[in-house]
Amino acid sequence: MKILIQNGTVVSATGRVLADVLTDGETIAAVLAPGSALLGADPAASVDRVIDATGRYVIPGGVDAHTHMELPFGGTAASDTFETGTRAAAWGGTTTIIDFAVQSHGQRVFDGLTAWHEKAAGNCAIDYGFHQIIGDLNTDSLQAMDGLLAEGVSSFKLFMAYSGVFYSDDAQILKAMQKSAGTGLMTMMHAENGPAIDVLVGQLLAQGKTAPYYHGVARAWQLEEEATHRAIMLANLTGAPLYVVHVSARQAVEQIAAARDTGQNVFGETCPQYLYLSLEENLGAPGFEGAKWVCSTPLRSRAEGHQDHLWQSLRTNDIQMVSTDHCPFCMKGQKDLGLNDFSKIPNGIGSVEHRLDLLYQGVVNERITLERWVEITSTTPARMFGLYGRKGVIQPGADADIVIYDPNGHTSIGLGVDEFGEQTGRSHHMNMDHSAWEGYEIDGHVDTVISRGKVIIDAQAYLGARGDGRFVPRGLSQYLI
Amino acid sequence: MKILIQNGTVVSATGRVLADVLTDGETIAAVLAPGSALLGADPAASVDRVIDATGRYVIPGGVDAHTHMELPFGGTAASDTFETGTRAAAWGGTTTIIDFAVQSHGQRVFDGLTAWHEKAAGNCAIDYGFHQIIGDLNTDSLQAMDGLLAEGVSSFKLFMAYSGVFYSDDAQILKAMQKSAGTGLMTMMHAENGPAIDVLVGQLLAQGKTAPYYHGVARAWQLEEEATHRAIMLANLTGAPLYVVHVSARQAVEQIAAARDTGQNVFGETCPQYLYLSLEENLGAPGFEGAKWVCSTPLRSRAEGHQDHLWQSLRTNDIQMVSTDHCPFCMKGQKDLGLNDFSKIPNGIGSVEHRLDLLYQGVVNERITLERWVEITSTTPARMFGLYGRKGVIQPGADADIVIYDPNGHTSIGLGVDEFGEQTGRSHHMNMDHSAWEGYEIDGHVDTVISRGKVIIDAQAYLGARGDGRFVPRGLSQYLI
Amino acid sequence: MKILIQNGTVVSATGRVLADVLTDGETIAAVLAPGSALLGADPAASVDRVIDATGRYVIPGGVDAHTHMELPFGGTAASDTFETGTRAAAWGGTTTIIDFAVQSHGQRVFDGLTAWHEKAAGNCAIDYGFHQIIGDLNTDSLQAMDGLLAEGVSSFKLFMAYSGVFYSDDAQILKAMQKSAGTGLMTMMHAENGPAIDVLVGQLLAQGKTAPYYHGVARAWQLEEEATHRAIMLANLTGAPLYVVHVSARQAVEQIAAARDTGQNVFGETCPQYLYLSLEENLGAPGFEGAKWVCSTPLRSRAEGHQDHLWQSLRTNDIQMVSTDHCPFCMKGQKDLGLNDFSKIPNGIGSVEHRLDLLYQGVVNERITLERWVEITSTTPARMFGLYGRKGVIQPGADADIVIYDPNGHTSIGLGVDEFGEQTGRSHHMNMDHSAWEGYEIDGHVDTVISRGKVIIDAQAYLGARGDGRFVPRGLSQYLI
Amino acid sequence: MKILIQNGTVVSATGRVLADVLTDGETIAAVLAPGSALLGADPAASVDRVIDATGRYVIPGGVDAHTHMELPFGGTAASDTFETGTRAAAWGGTTTIIDFAVQSHGQRVFDGLTAWHEKAAGNCAIDYGFHQIIGDLNTDSLQAMDGLLAEGVSSFKLFMAYSGVFYSDDAQILKAMQKSAGTGLMTMMHAENGPAIDVLVGQLLAQGKTAPYYHGVARAWQLEEEATHRAIMLANLTGAPLYVVHVSARQAVEQIAAARDTGQNVFGETCPQYLYLSLEENLGAPGFEGAKWVCSTPLRSRAEGHQDHLWQSLRTNDIQMVSTDHCPFCMKGQKDLGLNDFSKIPNGIGSVEHRLDLLYQGVVNERITLERWVEITSTTPARMFGLYGRKGVIQPGADADIVIYDPNGHTSIGLGVDEFGEQTGRSHHMNMDHSAWEGYEIDGHVDTVISRGKVIIDAQAYLGARGDGRFVPRGLSQYLI
Repeated sequence: MKILIQNGTVVSATGRVLADVLTDGETIAAVLAPGSALLGADPAASVDRVIDATGRYVIPGGVDAHTHMELPFGGTAASDTFETGTRAAAWGGTTTIIDFAVQSHGQRVFDGLTAWHEKAAGNCAIDYGFHQIIGDLNTDSLQAMDGLLAEGVSSFKLFMAYSGVFYSDDAQILKAMQKSAGTGLMTMMHAENGPAIDVLVGQLLAQGKTAPYYHGVARAWQLEEEATHRAIMLANLTGAPLYVVHVSARQAVEQIAAARDTGQNVFGETCPQYLYLSLEENLGAPGFEGAKWVCSTPLRSRAEGHQDHLWQSLRTNDIQMVSTDHCPFCMKGQKDLGLNDFSKIPNGIGSVEHRLDLLYQGVVNERITLERWVEITSTTPARMFGLYGRKGVIQPGADADIVIYDPNGHTSIGLGVDEFGEQTGRSHHMNMDHSAWEGYEIDGHVDTVISRGKVIIDAQAYLGARGDGRFVPRGLSQYLI
Repeated sequence: MKILIQNGTVVSATGRVLADVLTDGETIAAVLAPGSALLGADPAASVDRVIDATGRYVIPGGVDAHTHMELPFGGTAASDTFETGTRAAAWGGTTTIIDFAVQSHGQRVFDGLTAWHEKAAGNCAIDYGFHQIIGDLNTDSLQAMDGLLAEGVSSFKLFMAYSGVFYSDDAQILKAMQKSAGTGLMTMMHAENGPAIDVLVGQLLAQGKTAPYYHGVARAWQLEEEATHRAIMLANLTGAPLYVVHVSARQAVEQIAAARDTGQNVFGETCPQYLYLSLEENLGAPGFEGAKWVCSTPLRSRAEGHQDHLWQSLRTNDIQMVSTDHCPFCMKGQKDLGLNDFSKIPNGIGSVEHRLDLLYQGVVNERITLERWVEITSTTPARMFGLYGRKGVIQPGADADIVIYDPNGHTSIGLGVDEFGEQTGRSHHMNMDHSAWEGYEIDGHVDTVISRGKVIIDAQAYLGARGDGRFVPRGLSQYLI
Repeated sequence: MKILIQNGTVVSATGRVLADVLTDGETIAAVLAPGSALLGADPAASVDRVIDATGRYVIPGGVDAHTHMELPFGGTAASDTFETGTRAAAWGGTTTIIDFAVQSHGQRVFDGLTAWHEKAAGNCAIDYGFHQIIGDLNTDSLQAMDGLLAEGVSSFKLFMAYSGVFYSDDAQILKAMQKSAGTGLMTMMHAENGPAIDVLVGQLLAQGKTAPYYHGVARAWQLEEEATHRAIMLANLTGAPLYVVHVSARQAVEQIAAARDTGQNVFGETCPQYLYLSLEENLGAPGFEGAKWVCSTPLRSRAEGHQDHLWQSLRTNDIQMVSTDHCPFCMKGQKDLGLNDFSKIPNGIGSVEHRLDLLYQGVVNERITLERWVEITSTTPARMFGLYGRKGVIQPGADADIVIYDPNGHTSIGLGVDEFGEQTGRSHHMNMDHSAWEGYEIDGHVDTVISRGKVIIDAQAYLGARGDGRFVPRGLSQYLI
Repeated sequence: MKILIQNGTVVSATGRVLADVLTDGETIAAVLAPGSALLGADPAASVDRVIDATGRYVIPGGVDAHTHMELPFGGTAASDTFETGTRAAAWGGTTTIIDFAVQSHGQRVFDGLTAWHEKAAGNCAIDYGFHQIIGDLNTDSLQAMDGLLAEGVSSFKLFMAYSGVFYSDDAQILKAMQKSAGTGLMTMMHAENGPAIDVLVGQLLAQGKTAPYYHGVARAWQLEEEATHRAIMLANLTGAPLYVVHVSARQAVEQIAAARDTGQNVFGETCPQYLYLSLEENLGAPGFEGAKWVCSTPLRSRAEGHQDHLWQSLRTNDIQMVSTDHCPFCMKGQKDLGLNDFSKIPNGIGSVEHRLDLLYQGVVNERITLERWVEITSTTPARMFGLYGRKGVIQPGADADIVIYDPNGHTSIGLGVDEFGEQTGRSHHMNMDHSAWEGYEIDGHVDTVISRGKVIIDAQAYLGARGDGRFVPRGLSQYLI
């Protein structure tokens, strides 16, 4: 199967060019000057399909480096399976996810990894890799970490919060970071001071403050800033490369920026929800509606300026990339576990389908450039987690993961309404009974999605199949400062 | 003329890939998966020449955004003509220079630009563009600036030093920056507090301190830091994009980094001499030898750590790119004008030939990555000054400006010695009677240089001709933060 | 004449104590445990007067280190003479001023100083010293500076603004600072980028923006921040101690704080107007009323938070003291010179009478402590400018400059209104036809003022006489960090 | 008993004055202009004793806010009892100590406080107060903290290190700080990341690195900086005032300075050992000698510049005061517990006798001013911990705690040598078999020490008695920023 994408504007992290892209089987065979008769042959004549991309952007498929399909959490589990979640991702132009395999407390690391392979294998619409959550950092786990890279897992995640579940104390973190420094594995960190948060949660509940809003109060920015700094200093001491997940507080960004200014290998990820949503407007919505947006780190106060600062930090590269932390829960039967106690609301928002669109709107709004959009949604995630060359770029030899994006198209997120004013059903493809993004309008549209040379989204239809996606082993980060 | 470069490692700012590059006439026609029979044809069979780049890097030709060919200075003129200087650049893998057209005091801006076109036209070995020095910022000059972009000149340079020659005071700078903000032209700034320096120069000379070393004493880091900060604040006030040339003081870097952290469009350039050479070892060389390294801003003290900080800032992107500020003068008849008065030594160092090599050594020494090398010597200069797409990248449609670099080769800079211990003549191609870089050994080698599809350096020979190079009009910067 | 002040709370910069204060002639003879029979004698029996200060604060007389009596400015002169201005100061609890002797352009330094002695001698209600404005920094002036200390003048002031009047360029500043470093004289700096301001003023007027408000627009915070940084770096280079006058921009404070954090001898003064008043509310008052508050540096935007930051900086000692920059002009016949051109409005606000009260209100409002109030209005000014021991402290041997302040009293500033609603006349004693502080209510009152052992204010009456005040020669600053 | 100290230079935190000081019983009755016949009487004639202080400094007695007399530690106890330790303090000009009462794990807070009262009562040479160590932060302890102020204890200390002994985790710290914010009690913090240190200690010992030097390696500056930042952020969140004890790392100072720049009530203390001694020269001394200087936080590397930065921070008030952390252990029988394992060396250095001298040498060396010496050794400690007015100042009503210090005297610390070159015995009065300060020469001398009106040191003799010292209840800090 050969496809020729003609006359599009190929956008990379550094610039844009009018060029044709030729795929051959699962990979990209060539990038060509448009319209030229190459070596005497008319390329269009000898391919299986020609796609005219005139006036549209041809970009590398999105890489979402932070998803939690089927994650058990608080007595329930994230509502997207690998099947439903990766299909939704495909709809939104994401062609690779990196999900988190979990080592639970008391479990062996590789048993956790195996379990995740079993969940994903044969079910995915797009390619996938794994980070490894180390939920029980003991001598055995440390030893297991030596074997991760050989399994194509070049990063592990620790939690400074969630006592009794995933929590690692500083002694454990130090040991894991020594391992990270020795092996080159990237240390990923959930940076919130869990023990302090637990005290505040208990006090708020004791005061009868049970609404979703108090989730944001308990997880104060000081406790994110503090944990971020602590992780940075332990990384400084050990020499470990550090990647801070889902940064939401401007003060945490400042800690990361300060460390980077000294040359330390520290990186930061943010998520669409921290760029657009807020404590006041969302977590503080009337009644229990705020539960839709309960995630950790929490949405922050707009009055305090976190959102604007995060957009700025994307522009100045103080934050390097945007993932979704996709972890969807339905309101009915899941989020409502915390109807009378915010601490029992499952933590998570579903966005895997909307990341490219939401960030493209940042281009429209002049928050970031078109090139930076490609960089933060695809190129940098690939470089950061050892996929670049295969993913994250349009060049010969790379996997033919390609999105054709129409800047003149339009995307409405949320529930649609028919001509009689009736809701017509879900306008997204994630397995959720609501959307955290309802009402968001995007001045662009994902038209066509190609995954390893196969067109899986086109003309508003899903053309792929369960099991199209394969596990992609990853190498070490290619993006140490 | 079609050339196929086979089996090389094509290195971009974001990564590397094994790929073939096909040129067609003056531009790149395709980047291809290596060795594949493309569209049924054997590419190698249908081209004029095949170059085997196995084991070597294929990189976009260098863009040196800061040269001063034939610049009149202190009663003499830079010793490289556009002919000799651009030929030397070609030897070193640089395929584009951006030189500075000069509006002298009392002259009209476009007369200065015309004069520079006359100097360069028909003489260059490689392509060239112009920045415009505004040496006399008056009402007429301000008006003329409106016409620069139409002439393909998208940047102008002001000087905060050199009273009575190029100096602009703060009132003039403010007006020019307002123009910059309005037009999008990049403001380039020589940031040193000239009036203060002039006082110190006079005092040192009055004390009999006439040696080259005192050039560095008079131009203290405080006066670079101060002027850098001043330029940044005037840019902040007006909204002008700002590019600070030849940054040498770590404190000046810190000012730039701080401004960038706030999201201001401020950029910094450094030069190889500030990365490698020092006040103590070079300016402080015995006798008059230090004159070789008299340039402004001056070489800085190694004890104060400027050099290490500059390398770090290249890594952390606090400094964005490296130019040469190539401005050569011979010791005999030029530098020796200041034999008894350092202030009369023509300011300048010749490096246009060695930039790629010297920076590649930074890769060998693990100061920067291979990708960052390409970024700071080619991709960013092209983006910064509105050349990207045509220059600075290997992609279809781009000018076929390509360098094949051998990481297993070796380059010795400076005077060679024959088997009898006699000096065999110059080992460089710049029109200088010495080298500022004598003794530097590089673990790599520029093997082949292609300029707009024509091989001009190959097998240790220059194959080009005077006049190969053409003026390249530039658009606005593509690299505002 | 001996006075015993009994049972008051003596407040110093470090604490408060119930103690009696005994004066003997012009100085303080003793500070005594209250009510005790000292050495067998009843102190109260052997003095000329006993003042019961029960429930009141006994503080060292205020030292206002920045006044401009009779200053010629823009074709007119400050409306307070040394007679009227110092009398008003006395009413407000200030017992020492340091005024600025002016060397005008073309004048010799000591001729300027002599002229100021002539203006002041025999006319003052309280003691006075002089700083020396160097308005024409040439070889002769530099030489004259060597003689200043012998004249009791240990500080000089330069201006980075006011071209053609007081302006010094960077070359002149550098030379003066070298002199400062050599002699220990304090360099005082008016830090605004005058040449840039002049451009903006011209542009605003050309656009018909002539109202007082545009005075604040033209003198943007960036231009204060920039000049402050420049002065700091020139001081860093030369080793001169630096005192920045009338700081109003938070960003300028940050520059001073950053320099101090490195151990550099940099100090900052602010004024009551920058703590309380704002661009929006005052300069932006309807019609021409804003002219009352035209001063330089200008009032700053409250929305930008300058006022709050200045209060904080007083608390954290990033700013060390508060002077008035007293420079009054009447609306009629003076301020109205700029009715159609804000740049012609004489620059200045009259506050010499209200400084202690306005700052005491900061104690009431919990912005600063009671001790800090004494420190920033008396002790630090005395230490900063070489008067401590004689002024700025209540201790034996010090001049008996003492204020009895009633925290249960009240002071209304501005025009009073009688029972029939008619204005009863001026409620202040400065020679102005208006008050910049009209409507300010103070929860405290200056009850009694003693100057060198003589009660000059008591029971709402002025008991002093013209010529009570004497010139006080000053030594070097006692407050270098 | 009345004493008149005549003709001395009375030095306060803000300045110096020639004045006489008259004591009456236990307090200061008056500060008088020198030599004057007061109220007709000749003071000298009516007092019990006249001390001529001509040419000498008269300063408030030193307040050492951090001592550990008789502290149980690692199976032994600090070698100075309250009797020996306070007598040594008196010899060195310190007239008040604040020692740490200990609540051990499992003990009730007030039982710990009572135990400390029993140790001290009737045994002290000088006055003493207590901070309260909270070694077991539970519900009962939190409740007990409400009663501390009534006991004259206005501060408590937590430890972020020493697991299983004094360690509090972040949840406990948060709760205690909430109490601190509510009551005004000062939170004192031992800021080192204990869990991380414990890991490093174990690893070093496992590698056979058992020498005293590795004590400094294990307690890396990153772990002090980190804990300092963490304490600051928890204080920021809760509103607690925070005092960081024994700061030794420049990076920790920078954290404190940054917090203070925002107006947060954060304070820092350093100790003489961190100003003078170093990792390389002392902890790294040959053999086991380094054990003399094992204390926590540890001595820091001189190559890294910590010592110079600490001196600077004393000058710029980024660090507010100097205590000793006096915690002496003999080499024989105590320090040698760790002969084969640095982690078993009791932590502590004895300096209570030398603080004033060692800091005075900083005046001689022009690190700080004479006034700052008084401020950091007496005035600020008294203000910081609620003793000012009674202690820390020479003024009527204050306790007559006075030191007469001779700037022309000399003090040799360490073992003396007789005319035959034989060691004559200890030259200090602490109960130690060595001196951590042997060989230090001081250009000044504590001549006379008066404690609450009684001369206890004079003419090289101790004239006091066991039990002279009394418990001084303290109020809240008078020194919140």
